Amino acid sequence: MKNTFGSSLSLTIFGESHGCAIGAVLDGMAAGVPVEEKFLARCMDQRRARGDGLSTPRVEADRIRFLSGVVNGHTTGTAIALMIENQNTRSGDYAKTADLLRPGHADYTAYAKYHGFQDARGGGHFSGRVTAALVAGGAVVLAALQRAGIDIATHIARCSGISDIPFALDDPAALSAQVQTLATKEAGFAVLDAAAEEPMKAAIRSAGAEGDSVGGVLETAILGLPAGVGEPYFDSVESLLAHLAFSIPAVKGIEFGTGFGFADLRGSGANDAFRMKDGHIVTATNHNAGINGGIANGMPVVFRTVVKPTPSIYKQQDTVDYISKKDAQLSIQGRHDPCIVPRAAIVQTCAAALAVGDLLTARYGEGWMTRPATFRKEAN
Amino acid sequence: MKNTFGSSLSLTIFGESHGCAIGAVLDGMAAGVPVEEKFLARCMDQRRARGDGLSTPRVEADRIRFLSGVVNGHTTGTAIALMIENQNTRSGDYAKTADLLRPGHADYTAYAKYHGFQDARGGGHFSGRVTAALVAGGAVVLAALQRAGIDIATHIARCSGISDIPFALDDPAALSAQVQTLATKEAGFAVLDAAAEEPMKAAIRSAGAEGDSVGGVLETAILGLPAGVGEPYFDSVESLLAHLAFSIPAVKGIEFGTGFGFADLRGSGANDAFRMKDGHIVTATNHNAGINGGIANGMPVVFRTVVKPTPSIYKQQDTVDYISKKDAQLSIQGRHDPCIVPRAAIVQTCAAALAVGDLLTARYGEGWMTRPATFRKEAN
Amino acid sequence: MKNTFGSSLSLTIFGESHGCAIGAVLDGMAAGVPVEEKFLARCMDQRRARGDGLSTPRVEADRIRFLSGVVNGHTTGTAIALMIENQNTRSGDYAKTADLLRPGHADYTAYAKYHGFQDARGGGHFSGRVTAALVAGGAVVLAALQRAGIDIATHIARCSGISDIPFALDDPAALSAQVQTLATKEAGFAVLDAAAEEPMKAAIRSAGAEGDSVGGVLETAILGLPAGVGEPYFDSVESLLAHLAFSIPAVKGIEFGTGFGFADLRGSGANDAFRMKDGHIVTATNHNAGINGGIANGMPVVFRTVVKPTPSIYKQQDTVDYISKKDAQLSIQGRHDPCIVPRAAIVQTCAAALAVGDLLTARYGEGWMTRPATFRKEAN
Amino acid sequence: MKNTFGSSLSLTIFGESHGCAIGAVLDGMAAGVPVEEKFLARCMDQRRARGDGLSTPRVEADRIRFLSGVVNGHTTGTAIALMIENQNTRSGDYAKTADLLRPGHADYTAYAKYHGFQDARGGGHFSGRVTAALVAGGAVVLAALQRAGIDIATHIARCSGISDIPFALDDPAALSAQVQTLATKEAGFAVLDAAAEEPMKAAIRSAGAEGDSVGGVLETAILGLPAGVGEPYFDSVESLLAHLAFSIPAVKGIEFGTGFGFADLRGSGANDAFRMKDGHIVTATNHNAGINGGIANGMPVVFRTVVKPTPSIYKQQDTVDYISKKDAQLSIQGRHDPCIVPRAAIVQTCAAALAVGDLLTARYGEGWMTRPATFRKEAN
Repeated sequence: MKNTFGSSLSLTIFGESHGCAIGAVLDGMAAGVPVEEKFLARCMDQRRARGDGLSTPRVEADRIRFLSGVVNGHTTGTAIALMIENQNTRSGDYAKTADLLRPGHADYTAYAKYHGFQDARGGGHFSGRVTAALVAGGAVVLAALQRAGIDIATHIARCSGISDIPFALDDPAALSAQVQTLATKEAGFAVLDAAAEEPMKAAIRSAGAEGDSVGGVLETAILGLPAGVGEPYFDSVESLLAHLAFSIPAVKGIEFGTGFGFADLRGSGANDAFRMKDGHIVTATNHNAGINGGIANGMPVVFRTVVKPTPSIYKQQDTVDYISKKDAQLSIQGRHDPCIVPRAAIVQTCAAALAVGDLLTARYGEGWMTRPATFRKEAN
Repeated sequence: MKNTFGSSLSLTIFGESHGCAIGAVLDGMAAGVPVEEKFLARCMDQRRARGDGLSTPRVEADRIRFLSGVVNGHTTGTAIALMIENQNTRSGDYAKTADLLRPGHADYTAYAKYHGFQDARGGGHFSGRVTAALVAGGAVVLAALQRAGIDIATHIARCSGISDIPFALDDPAALSAQVQTLATKEAGFAVLDAAAEEPMKAAIRSAGAEGDSVGGVLETAILGLPAGVGEPYFDSVESLLAHLAFSIPAVKGIEFGTGFGFADLRGSGANDAFRMKDGHIVTATNHNAGINGGIANGMPVVFRTVVKPTPSIYKQQDTVDYISKKDAQLSIQGRHDPCIVPRAAIVQTCAAALAVGDLLTARYGEGWMTRPATFRKEAN
Repeated sequence: MKNTFGSSLSLTIFGESHGCAIGAVLDGMAAGVPVEEKFLARCMDQRRARGDGLSTPRVEADRIRFLSGVVNGHTTGTAIALMIENQNTRSGDYAKTADLLRPGHADYTAYAKYHGFQDARGGGHFSGRVTAALVAGGAVVLAALQRAGIDIATHIARCSGISDIPFALDDPAALSAQVQTLATKEAGFAVLDAAAEEPMKAAIRSAGAEGDSVGGVLETAILGLPAGVGEPYFDSVESLLAHLAFSIPAVKGIEFGTGFGFADLRGSGANDAFRMKDGHIVTATNHNAGINGGIANGMPVVFRTVVKPTPSIYKQQDTVDYISKKDAQLSIQGRHDPCIVPRAAIVQTCAAALAVGDLLTARYGEGWMTRPATFRKEAN
Repeated sequence: MKNTFGSSLSLTIFGESHGCAIGAVLDGMAAGVPVEEKFLARCMDQRRARGDGLSTPRVEADRIRFLSGVVNGHTTGTAIALMIENQNTRSGDYAKTADLLRPGHADYTAYAKYHGFQDARGGGHFSGRVTAALVAGGAVVLAALQRAGIDIATHIARCSGISDIPFALDDPAALSAQVQTLATKEAGFAVLDAAAEEPMKAAIRSAGAEGDSVGGVLETAILGLPAGVGEPYFDSVESLLAHLAFSIPAVKGIEFGTGFGFADLRGSGANDAFRMKDGHIVTATNHNAGINGGIANGMPVVFRTVVKPTPSIYKQQDTVDYISKKDAQLSIQGRHDPCIVPRAAIVQTCAAALAVGDLLTARYGEGWMTRPATFRKEAN
């Protein structure tokens, strides 16, 4: 199914940038799981544009309206449908250049696929706006995971050539502290290194001022995933996380733990030695990012994705008029982000929550949601 | 489903390294598709160990036996079951150190997941041996793709610190020539640069001689994928290719086109300008690797994966005895590859074939298989 | 996935009887398929209560609001989300007897499953009201099928002991005329025999007047399904139609063609002899209802379902107070149908459309929707 | 997926009647579940032909060979592949009449679907022989269900016009005794009424002697299914059981509990009153067959299917030569059952086990298999 992910806990997304609403159906949540508006609002806020030169001037309230599945602040056990209205649309911006394919965008592929029937206004279903639905649905799962002792957080590891402090891959305690730090940070710009924040912002604003855009790297950590979750081969922890990460528009690469650094290592330097610690089996290093043979080993899961620069730039570009089939030049109108990396951080966190929630439900059924404390005890 | 991939064209794999057989069920192939033993044998041969110091001394004939779904060299339209017998097993090698968790391996995660009931002999279901089933099933699809004008090839882009000539990402004609070169090469070591081959082999043998192992990078190209294949969001071309790539043991990262290089680019340098060429819409560059918004744009799809060094090394390693729950030291016995990168190339090609076959079948039904020429005409 | 049906063309439903809205997401429709409001409204109208003594006094406008996937009266190719607001709710009716399990209803099973967190107002997700979403989504597919030459219709074969003229199972031409008759009938009471209509209605009103309810049998015909659609074993035409038919609340049985009558036949009387007619292979009789080995043979597909009497009756009933765990007596309040058979007819038609749409898409991809005339030609 | 059923616990089947083997892959079983050869052999034996005039003279040993997933009599937690060799094939019987479509068979639909590439020998994939794989896979699940306190049994409710004693739908204790009786009966002819057995057998032999065949009704009971299992709408207990029942060749109808008898009942006579019994909520009657709103209510689940007479009969029949496209007459050769009802009983039991296993795994994860006693306690 094209717009559905997950077999035991699934999310179906829908909506277009300039349609009346975007939304999602989350199916598979047990009954009685708390759904706290405050938590959801905080997640939505992290994805929200602020009109501050770092993100698009199109600012949306992004209030989640539950159509079903949530009563009195708890899940009912049936499908949770939610919608988020599109309020601030200016389709006119796109009209003038509607026949000119925006480079780096899905205009041409949408045309090839939908033969002209696609909703092209504002990018339609391809718009990053649809990720608001992914965040809304994923945040419900994220909260349930937290109650079950599983924390997920994402920071801007690199942006416009400037690096943040990396996650402490090999040191669970230090990494846990980093995740806590991110949780207490004000929404909007998830970096660990206070000294990196302003230079990154300056670089984004500078690119924006030049009618250009910048890319970056997002790093996500998953803490508390019990050993034994995931499957060999097709449903490996890496497979599911990657499947969802590549669903985020602009993500073009992902690596786990030592990642591409493995290419030049030898086995003796790449293996993570096991050792006993406080009665538990742990690894001394964590090159493999908490995953062996596709299955969680109890160490932190850490991965990085690369986010390409926003394709929507104001600089003039070479392109094609797909109606006249002639070469042309395009100056994009509309309102766009000079960099989507900061806003994409929570999207990646929520995408990871969906993958983890699906894997847990496949193994433990609803138990991890309805009796998180018991689950925690048995799983460890 | 844990051991099944694909919703329109699916592969189910089974088997353990030291069980009687491994195999697969390929479901969704139309009736009447040619299945040529010679082609399959060539694919299997590319994955086969040779006992030449580059790969494990465990050499298997790897003859594919079809149990169903193939009659008179053609598919019948029903489930294709195939098995490959395990003939050269020496489980005794593992007995002595059975309680010592091999670092970098799935011993511990299998134990956490299966509570001691896993088939631990030779790595059981986690063994790279199971990828022979993936190659066998994938090769049937690969041949069908070729008849439909879609070529897939993989080369060793880097190994033990030595690089091959990269695929010509931006130049379809040159890339096509590279793919042809690989097709005519003798099986076993897929490099484009003849000058790189011997140094790579020497580095592998040298690591093996020291009881160690090396990793590398595989690069895959998909030519001829029609524009319009793939889905926005969850079933993006990237999502499906990545899902399958991470099913290959030892793969820990994947990037498409410019990949992690996007992090430091600006939009003006990262966008692929459209232009007309011979009446078709193409892109001047190919940073996005033939994929926009998750959907193929008709340009070549190119991706790279990183393959970690084989975790099985002969050097002594720190580990844990999981029965006594005490720290211990392990010297691995058994027969292993000092580097699996060369053998994994065809696995990655076949994995990509499965993803592409599933996407095509979802969009075009069986038509692309039964009437490849008509499909080709309509799709372009 | 619990609330999703279909793998190639899928419908996800959501909503509760007294929540703010019910709705559905239809995924897998090609781009450019016409969506005519008039046709949809007619389908919705056939399911609508009329407050005429035959159905519940709860009358809803049931206007379909598309949230995504439909622009300018055509599908865009992405997920079609639709919602129908609940306007006429009177949850107070249920408050008094909320702890008393309604016999024949899902009150107890919902309690066992959802541990008290279910939305119990008006039956919640179990309410027949949710079938409005199934009709809305199914009607989009139904219209596409009609354009591809496939007709589906359902009539009330029996109600409260009174029978309608049965579908002409063995005579495609006569059956086709019956289906046309139903199409031209005013909405609300699908019978072929004008003489049976008033007695049926009288029997329903009479049962309602006594605070009781009645059941019946629905018969559905599918015309124009091309030979070759469906799969042996798990995805047989019968399996998919039955799967969906049993998703309709109150359906407790289904039979195809001669159905339970096969029990007492001999093979010589049950087999459908093949013969040539106008250059086509047809069968002389149609005991097997157009399906051999799970696959359509080109003859009409005909099946009957039994619909149990509405469990909500006003007569006093023995039951249990599930809070006090004591035997009790219940007089149901609320507004209910003395018979849901008439309103369920279009639900069954739309459910069948979803099953057929999924099977066609699996075999032909999107082709049957985008080029119905070509499809028709090739399929015959 | 065409040959796969189940999303949490899945079975993939393969094979052709006259190919080298049939088989199945069962995926989703937890590790450590006992697999007892004796139990499996007993199940296979119930489906086996005996050459006694009641079933086909083609007698097969039907020994199950596990290729993977079972070691030392326990599941390993990975995919369980099994195969059953075809030993007694006589394809020559079919050669003479290969172009004549057998009425009631899938010859024509296979031709329409597979365009002549189908394996037509002995019915190929359409042969009832493939149900041996379904029994083998289902029996592994059936044994696990028994350990978890869930019993399933099927008897011949009616055959050739002669009825067995029906299951005691409304009386769990009496029904349980009936199920025990069936369990202790010698394999091969599952009737409750000793007085009905010989007349049924005589009627079958008599039809066979006349070159004809007979049909019948199978009735299945599921005891011990915990309240709360199943889903509203698409994954209702009825939907899944029906989906699988219709996968059994020759099944053309299914009804639950009072079934088609509901058509003429009033709600007051059809509702099952709740009452307390020994501290548990039960129903006084069981018209609804233990299922309300698609979800198990803890009472026995009882359903009946109709099995059409074997289409393969020796009497001369009218048909079509599909090569010459001319009317023709056919006298079927080959070896066939005059009645498949007795052999199909265990197939239906195993099919039901697969549906129940999938539903349990979706709700409880692996817990019901690995800790059946704990599961039993919590579920009640």
